[in-house]
Amino acid sequence: MNSIIHSFPGKMDFASGERLQFASQIFKALKDLNEVGPGISRETYGPGETLAMEYCVKLATKEGLSCWFDEAANMVIELAGEDKNAPFIICGSHLDSVPQGGNYDGAAGVVAGLIALIRMQREGKIPPRSIRVMGLRGEESAWFGQCYLGSSALFGLLTKSDTERRHRTSGKPLKDYMKELNVNVKKILSGEPLLDVDSIAAYLELHIEQGPVMVARNMPVAVVTGLRGNIRHQDIVCEGEAGHAGAVPRWLRHDAVLATADLLNRYDTHWAALQERGLDLVLTAGILRTNSSDHAMSRIPGECHFSLEIRSQSIDTLEAFYQLLRSEAESVERERGVRFLFDDRSFAAPAVLDQRWIDHLLNCCKGNGLNSEAIASGAGHDAAVFANSGVPSAMIFVRNENGSHNPNESMEIEDFMYGVDVLYDALLDPPL
Amino acid sequence: MNSIIHSFPGKMDFASGERLQFASQIFKALKDLNEVGPGISRETYGPGETLAMEYCVKLATKEGLSCWFDEAANMVIELAGEDKNAPFIICGSHLDSVPQGGNYDGAAGVVAGLIALIRMQREGKIPPRSIRVMGLRGEESAWFGQCYLGSSALFGLLTKSDTERRHRTSGKPLKDYMKELNVNVKKILSGEPLLDVDSIAAYLELHIEQGPVMVARNMPVAVVTGLRGNIRHQDIVCEGEAGHAGAVPRWLRHDAVLATADLLNRYDTHWAALQERGLDLVLTAGILRTNSSDHAMSRIPGECHFSLEIRSQSIDTLEAFYQLLRSEAESVERERGVRFLFDDRSFAAPAVLDQRWIDHLLNCCKGNGLNSEAIASGAGHDAAVFANSGVPSAMIFVRNENGSHNPNESMEIEDFMYGVDVLYDALLDPPL
Repeated sequence: MNSIIHSFPGKMDFASGERLQFASQIFKALKDLNEVGPGISRETYGPGETLAMEYCVKLATKEGLSCWFDEAANMVIELAGEDKNAPFIICGSHLDSVPQGGNYDGAAGVVAGLIALIRMQREGKIPPRSIRVMGLRGEESAWFGQCYLGSSALFGLLTKSDTERRHRTSGKPLKDYMKELNVNVKKILSGEPLLDVDSIAAYLELHIEQGPVMVARNMPVAVVTGLRGNIRHQDIVCEGEAGHAGAVPRWLRHDAVLATADLLNRYDTHWAALQERGLDLVLTAGILRTNSSDHAMSRIPGECHFSLEIRSQSIDTLEAFYQLLRSEAESVERERGVRFLFDDRSFAAPAVLDQRWIDHLLNCCKGNGLNSEAIASGAGHDAAVFANSGVPSAMIFVRNENGSHNPNESMEIEDFMYGVDVLYDALLDPPL
Repeated sequence: MNSIIHSFPGKMDFASGERLQFASQIFKALKDLNEVGPGISRETYGPGETLAMEYCVKLATKEGLSCWFDEAANMVIELAGEDKNAPFIICGSHLDSVPQGGNYDGAAGVVAGLIALIRMQREGKIPPRSIRVMGLRGEESAWFGQCYLGSSALFGLLTKSDTERRHRTSGKPLKDYMKELNVNVKKILSGEPLLDVDSIAAYLELHIEQGPVMVARNMPVAVVTGLRGNIRHQDIVCEGEAGHAGAVPRWLRHDAVLATADLLNRYDTHWAALQERGLDLVLTAGILRTNSSDHAMSRIPGECHFSLEIRSQSIDTLEAFYQLLRSEAESVERERGVRFLFDDRSFAAPAVLDQRWIDHLLNCCKGNGLNSEAIASGAGHDAAVFANSGVPSAMIFVRNENGSHNPNESMEIEDFMYGVDVLYDALLDPPL
């Protein structure tokens, strides 16, 4: 592995152009380490994730930073601050990826923290509080069907059923993978946190944006206001009545497709109206189908299935909109003589980020000449675990084309360096 | 197959009660032959349809009737008339069904003709004109997306693109299925009719009613005035853009499902408005689906497929409404940044039936003590092809509950026998 560690002699100035080149080399090295077929595969609690962590540790060690793995096998890299006894700041993200994913989803946040710390180290800057860059294990649900494994372990939130979850291809349980990495499985299942919440001053996470908003608004860096929670139904069934498409007049029909179209159209109309009133909300019916075993072009459809999810940063918006959705379904039922059968609803709580840190990050953006805005995160992140555990948390988004979870994610290194500069300033002068 | 052919000794009187029992046994045998899971499946130009035809041919042969298959593989059963050189009367219907359909849609008309002929044969009655009972192939569009295949072939109306149409599940083209049944594909694509229109004196078809009108009016038998034509698309694709369901805001989405719901809802609204103005019209989107290879609950759907058909007795209403449908699709395309790709449109012209035969059938109803009325057919039938080819055509409807194209269609055998009696009288004393 030494061959891919790029050695830089210590100096008092780590110039902007050099930092950019340094970052490019790190991303190239990580890509070379983890490229499997098309895209990057870094398995949760598996070899790819560990390889990436070991690379970061070697790099940080060479720069004189302290490095270790905690009892959940999360990677920790520390730069001591002026006040070593004051609560420290965690700057983290994850180092796993989905199968055949991109190089930046997760890794960008860890590399950003690492470069910020190395810059402080090289320039001889000592931050007021100690800073720990963390490479969190298992943020992606793709491998074991459960997300936020490393950060949940940190706060004693993992359960036995989590560690019994089986790997998507090998079928082996998560606990076996953990044991191979010297995780203290007994301890992390005890409910006892690995870190005292009061010992953490703040959690900062830089991440690529997974949506198209920043590209559309020509904004290289943004600050995240909160992470959307969701309410989901996997399979809602509209039951109508099948019949001959030519021979039944409109007033005698109970067409499941037209009833579903009516309902989805009402949902869309309400969504548009609420958005205009400033509410944070997205709505998706990703799966839609008539019953392929008996549908036909010339048959009035008697059955139509669809999935539904709504996401919002506000739990009140989620619940209020959900009640509206259910009451519209009842209205369509009455008007069209159909029934909507809702399966079990699943729920994930939204996370609110820390307003003081949001303001601070926006100021740091301004200080770097960036015209940034605060936007919502539609996707989930480890920051939600920290925020919902009581740690003041904040996130920086970096512009990224083509979404994430695919080999085509495309972050410009210049945009990334803007994000690192904002992070560096924010860490050196925290609002504490 | 012999085991399910019920042999009846020749006699000079074929009494009403015996005829009813005979008919019941035939329907039971056809059901046993073609019951697949819930309901009946007789595939167009496929094994189920052929099994039913072979059963009818064996039965008719045993009764001394002449039987053959024409060059489109349609079944023909003939009873020679007094004047063998005069134009003959065709009494026909189809023997295919939709997937998981009922036992009577199609088969009732063929069995009615067969029983009428067998009764004449057994009772030694010779009709003035020869009568051919035809089991026409492929009336249902469910299997290849195109209706009236056998009757269209009869008049040289099939095109190469029709025979290239692919089977709903196997994906194989119609021409392959035809060749297996010894169809002369080259000849039926030549445009040359298999029968000279002038050789056909009339076309009569008995069929179950597929709507609820006769049940509502307590009318076991009715006479049909005309048939709705249709315009159809088997597979319209809405192309939007897939994306992360949480991270893309509404204004950047191109959601194929919500666009399709919007479009179908507009169609439904226009339909309701035109109906209120007295226009004859029905609209159905029987098939609707997202792409199962990549859809997911948390993914914005990038693709949505649906079928569409509209029916009317008026060709002007059909065309005008169709243009409205296309222009609404363009409007949704513009508003939502999606595209609707329409596959080949199929068209079946509405048909006006022959007034002389309508009056004749109404008289035969009266002669059987039935208080029948003339009503419109909401569904299409092979009779439309004959009528539009210049053959004087007429139809008898038999009352039927629960519509058709489903396993619950429910014709009372007593109602059916009234229809057979009307047909028998009409054939023995044609208005020619």
